[in-house]
Amino acid sequence: MTETIYYNSWLTEYKKPFGAVSVNEEVTFTLTCECPVVEPVCLVVQKDFGDTFEVKMRPDGLSQHQVTIQLTEGQGLYYYFFKLTLQKEHQTRIVYYGNNKRFKGGEGQIYEDEHQVKPYQLTSYLYEDPSPKWYREGVAYHIFVDRFCNGNEDGTVLNPKRNSFLYAHQEDLPMYIKNKDGEVIRWEFYGGNLKGIIQKLPYLKALGITILYLSPIFEARSNHKYDTGDFMKIDPMFGDEETFKELIQKAEKNGMHILLDGVFNHSGADSRYFNLFGTYNEKGAYQSNESIYSNWYTFKKFPEFYESWWGVRDLPKLNTENPEVRSFIYEGKNSVIRKWSKLGIGGWRLDVADELSDDVLKGIRSALDETVPNSVLIGEVWEDVSNKISYNKRRHYIEGGMLHGAMNYPFREIIIGLLQNTITPQEAAEKWMNLKENYPAEAFKSNFNNIGTHDSKRILTILDRNVSKLKQAMALLFVLPGVPCLYYGDEAGLEGNEDPDNRRMYPWGRENNEIQMFAKKMSAIRNKEGSLREGDFYPFSQGGLMGIIRLVSKEEFVIALLNTSNEKIHLETSAIPEQYDLNIPSFLNENQIEHIQIEGNGMVLLKKEIDQETMIHII
Amino acid sequence: MTETIYYNSWLTEYKKPFGAVSVNEEVTFTLTCECPVVEPVCLVVQKDFGDTFEVKMRPDGLSQHQVTIQLTEGQGLYYYFFKLTLQKEHQTRIVYYGNNKRFKGGEGQIYEDEHQVKPYQLTSYLYEDPSPKWYREGVAYHIFVDRFCNGNEDGTVLNPKRNSFLYAHQEDLPMYIKNKDGEVIRWEFYGGNLKGIIQKLPYLKALGITILYLSPIFEARSNHKYDTGDFMKIDPMFGDEETFKELIQKAEKNGMHILLDGVFNHSGADSRYFNLFGTYNEKGAYQSNESIYSNWYTFKKFPEFYESWWGVRDLPKLNTENPEVRSFIYEGKNSVIRKWSKLGIGGWRLDVADELSDDVLKGIRSALDETVPNSVLIGEVWEDVSNKISYNKRRHYIEGGMLHGAMNYPFREIIIGLLQNTITPQEAAEKWMNLKENYPAEAFKSNFNNIGTHDSKRILTILDRNVSKLKQAMALLFVLPGVPCLYYGDEAGLEGNEDPDNRRMYPWGRENNEIQMFAKKMSAIRNKEGSLREGDFYPFSQGGLMGIIRLVSKEEFVIALLNTSNEKIHLETSAIPEQYDLNIPSFLNENQIEHIQIEGNGMVLLKKEIDQETMIHII
Repeated sequence: MTETIYYNSWLTEYKKPFGAVSVNEEVTFTLTCECPVVEPVCLVVQKDFGDTFEVKMRPDGLSQHQVTIQLTEGQGLYYYFFKLTLQKEHQTRIVYYGNNKRFKGGEGQIYEDEHQVKPYQLTSYLYEDPSPKWYREGVAYHIFVDRFCNGNEDGTVLNPKRNSFLYAHQEDLPMYIKNKDGEVIRWEFYGGNLKGIIQKLPYLKALGITILYLSPIFEARSNHKYDTGDFMKIDPMFGDEETFKELIQKAEKNGMHILLDGVFNHSGADSRYFNLFGTYNEKGAYQSNESIYSNWYTFKKFPEFYESWWGVRDLPKLNTENPEVRSFIYEGKNSVIRKWSKLGIGGWRLDVADELSDDVLKGIRSALDETVPNSVLIGEVWEDVSNKISYNKRRHYIEGGMLHGAMNYPFREIIIGLLQNTITPQEAAEKWMNLKENYPAEAFKSNFNNIGTHDSKRILTILDRNVSKLKQAMALLFVLPGVPCLYYGDEAGLEGNEDPDNRRMYPWGRENNEIQMFAKKMSAIRNKEGSLREGDFYPFSQGGLMGIIRLVSKEEFVIALLNTSNEKIHLETSAIPEQYDLNIPSFLNENQIEHIQIEGNGMVLLKKEIDQETMIHII
Repeated sequence: MTETIYYNSWLTEYKKPFGAVSVNEEVTFTLTCECPVVEPVCLVVQKDFGDTFEVKMRPDGLSQHQVTIQLTEGQGLYYYFFKLTLQKEHQTRIVYYGNNKRFKGGEGQIYEDEHQVKPYQLTSYLYEDPSPKWYREGVAYHIFVDRFCNGNEDGTVLNPKRNSFLYAHQEDLPMYIKNKDGEVIRWEFYGGNLKGIIQKLPYLKALGITILYLSPIFEARSNHKYDTGDFMKIDPMFGDEETFKELIQKAEKNGMHILLDGVFNHSGADSRYFNLFGTYNEKGAYQSNESIYSNWYTFKKFPEFYESWWGVRDLPKLNTENPEVRSFIYEGKNSVIRKWSKLGIGGWRLDVADELSDDVLKGIRSALDETVPNSVLIGEVWEDVSNKISYNKRRHYIEGGMLHGAMNYPFREIIIGLLQNTITPQEAAEKWMNLKENYPAEAFKSNFNNIGTHDSKRILTILDRNVSKLKQAMALLFVLPGVPCLYYGDEAGLEGNEDPDNRRMYPWGRENNEIQMFAKKMSAIRNKEGSLREGDFYPFSQGGLMGIIRLVSKEEFVIALLNTSNEKIHLETSAIPEQYDLNIPSFLNENQIEHIQIEGNGMVLLKKEIDQETMIHII
């Protein structure tokens, strides 16, 4: 029976167009069924958290059933499956064809019981919301400012904070200084600053970087500065507004845009607004309920019990429902967003975007677009952004008018799973296809990809210091669709377990040159090959081999082949699926590169350039 | 009955000479008893941990019973009391006259039951062992090196250790960085060094300092350096041997001697000898039982179970019974003692002297005397040094040939008790008299007095920031017999609770001038007045008034009067005990200074100079 009913959401002969569609766009579904049906086959569609409706499909030819619909219930998610009434030995029987049990899209399966059916997801977005070209086509570098470079020539730390510790050596390993309750009791600093970043612009340029994503730079007590003290001031340990302007200008001269980390869900307890420790002169919300900031926070019982991020007392939650807070952060003339955007930054990465309501995200985006068109707004979301539920609400981050893209942790998970051999190349390909299907195409291109951040173990450590695998991870980062973002030091061979070990000082003068050269090479390839920046994405597998096609046209594409096993593998070009209608196998065959050999844990990058008849190895 | 039998060990009409005696010196005891005795009164003497013998006393005149004996059982302690067989109403009854129940000497009491009798202590020393004059007459300053002064002009820390923290500001409060088990996991430093001490010699000279006692300066991992890593090397954070020589020379030019802190009971685990962490190239005792240092330590089970100071794993105990260790520390030609003494230091303060056997102390002293005559050797002992029992053995620290003196914590306790009003001036006087009685006179003069060290709360903190009381404490430090030793920063008004808070950085530029001026004044008075340096010591009390007489002769003495109450007090000169046979009250009366007024928590220092007929106020 499985062979007689078939549907595959990834193939345009079954669903057209591929993937997410815009609101009211027509979608055509085709199901093949080679057994006799009694009633018309039905497409069952449910709007996310909404009504279910059935649409009769038109029999078309011998075994095809087809219907074209518009999704008229507005933006968001739709779920669908098929309902068939079969005739078998004088009996009728209703069966269902839905998504596979892993909910991964593509080829589905038959269910006997309606309650068991896994539906397919179909994302409907408000409008195409492409990110700026400079962003979408860029290569990013994530700088944890305290840990990158101290630009003071004599090595002294700029304006160290009272009651804090300085690492004695840049090589020393990071550690938190905590009390028995696990609370940080004194912050420690290496002394990286903005001047240090300016100093290293030539290095970053040589590395092919075009986007600098900085961890938060506003005044705060900690070394990470996710506990903002004053949204209007650069932290004095990092520099001042003049130095920041200099950084923006010099970055621009080097062809780089700057992304700031916007932390708007909460402030620090030690802030101008909350002022738990009385650090600031003006009365803060904690100090008096007559403070002008009183309504910026939510007190359950003044002053000791207040809402905070994940119950962390040091991070009281800003009440972003309060119009004053909204005005301060984005709406007002001199809002945080506007003030810093006007200086000429490229855009913002929003910390814990999940915690900000869709309204707030829309508001931030509008303010940003108004102030500096061609800015980018991305958000920290750890899961599949298309179907993320946060606080019991389905979120609409990437359906137009909010985020251009999100930090792409799902890609990172797939890369790691693949290189740790906990998932097969086939599974990886399926997961990537699933994400490609779920995300609006523009959002998918605007993902902010990473293989490590300040919140995860260092990739080299995860991969047990296996440099070959690290190179594979890095190659994937640069070959996959979305914007590759290197976490500072990953290119230098920095190791490190969880926070704080993943925040070691950049090892100036002690870099791993092999890794660094490779990163530089990959970045250069990315910056050269249009297909890696803009090309369509087709993953495929052949046993231990992971294949990725990035294709602008049949005349211009790149194929990356990664051997995830320890044994040499010969690519059988027939492994490349014909079904994408690319004719790549034929092309390869014609050019007698039918058998390509990839060493264990090795990789090959092939390129087909316009007007050239053969593939060339680029790695 | 109490009035009819009397003895007072503090008065020479009852016991002569006063206090401790040398071996085989004659001692005369006189007891008065106005009731009829049947048998001869007996003096019962017991050698410490030895035999008891009874000596019959000779009736002398109406009520006196006297005997002169020699203590022939060698150096150490003797205990004695009196046994009387009384006749009363045709019955005979044996009673005993012994020490008072507080065991404080002076006036005793009658006991009915022999087993209840508290005996008097009588110390018998081997020989008079006077400390060098430069020491005995000096004023010392205790420097915790990391916390005193960073002599690097640009403020950078000299040779900071790997994986350590530096305080961001000199004003920051000290703190340990410990794990959940309370173990220090990373050491923190302010960056004080030898160059900084050299830089501050003019300041110390102006303060009247003539002795610098430095916390350990040999290479070690910690900031306190009681965990020696290499006894033959100055810690690189403090400087090098050249800088140390420069310090010695420049100190000498400024009239100052240097005392080093000798830590010979244990080494650090992170040492050239034990080498737990493999820091040193040569194999240490922990690493191999074929290490040349294997027998320097005592392993219960190699390598994890070893003897250490108070079970602190970081401080493995040196086996000082091993001749090799003895040779290394003191006996050998190039021993630690000899190497550093030869450079021209004034002597040593021995850390945890209790833990070193009498043999070792004698050996160290001999080596020192041989190498540099006129050196001083003092020890860290927290209790009455004359009768200290350590590891079940009575110790002979100050009976000749070992320590010249000890760190005088008992004095500190009395001073604090007095100023906190937990003991009365009368009790304080008794306690002081008790110590004066127990100690050999030379050792008593050679005590190393303090009102605070790196092991105790800051005196200003203990006295609840009461500056008047702090001045009283400081005045006592300079007026009492023994060598006054100021703990760095106490003169600057530093506060601080227990370790590490008592080890704040010296507040250069933020000193409390009032306290500093007072310390300078007291030090100047001490350096000027021979009676304060060499004079006999007689404490007395009148209600809330503490009186201290320091007297060279009846023609040259100082009287300090401290009011420990909040109310004004008039000294009645009659409060000054006539019994000391000093005729001071008469002198005062003759000079019409019968009534001297002292403000609440205030003090008066009076001086009688040779050839002057009246007292003059010096404070």
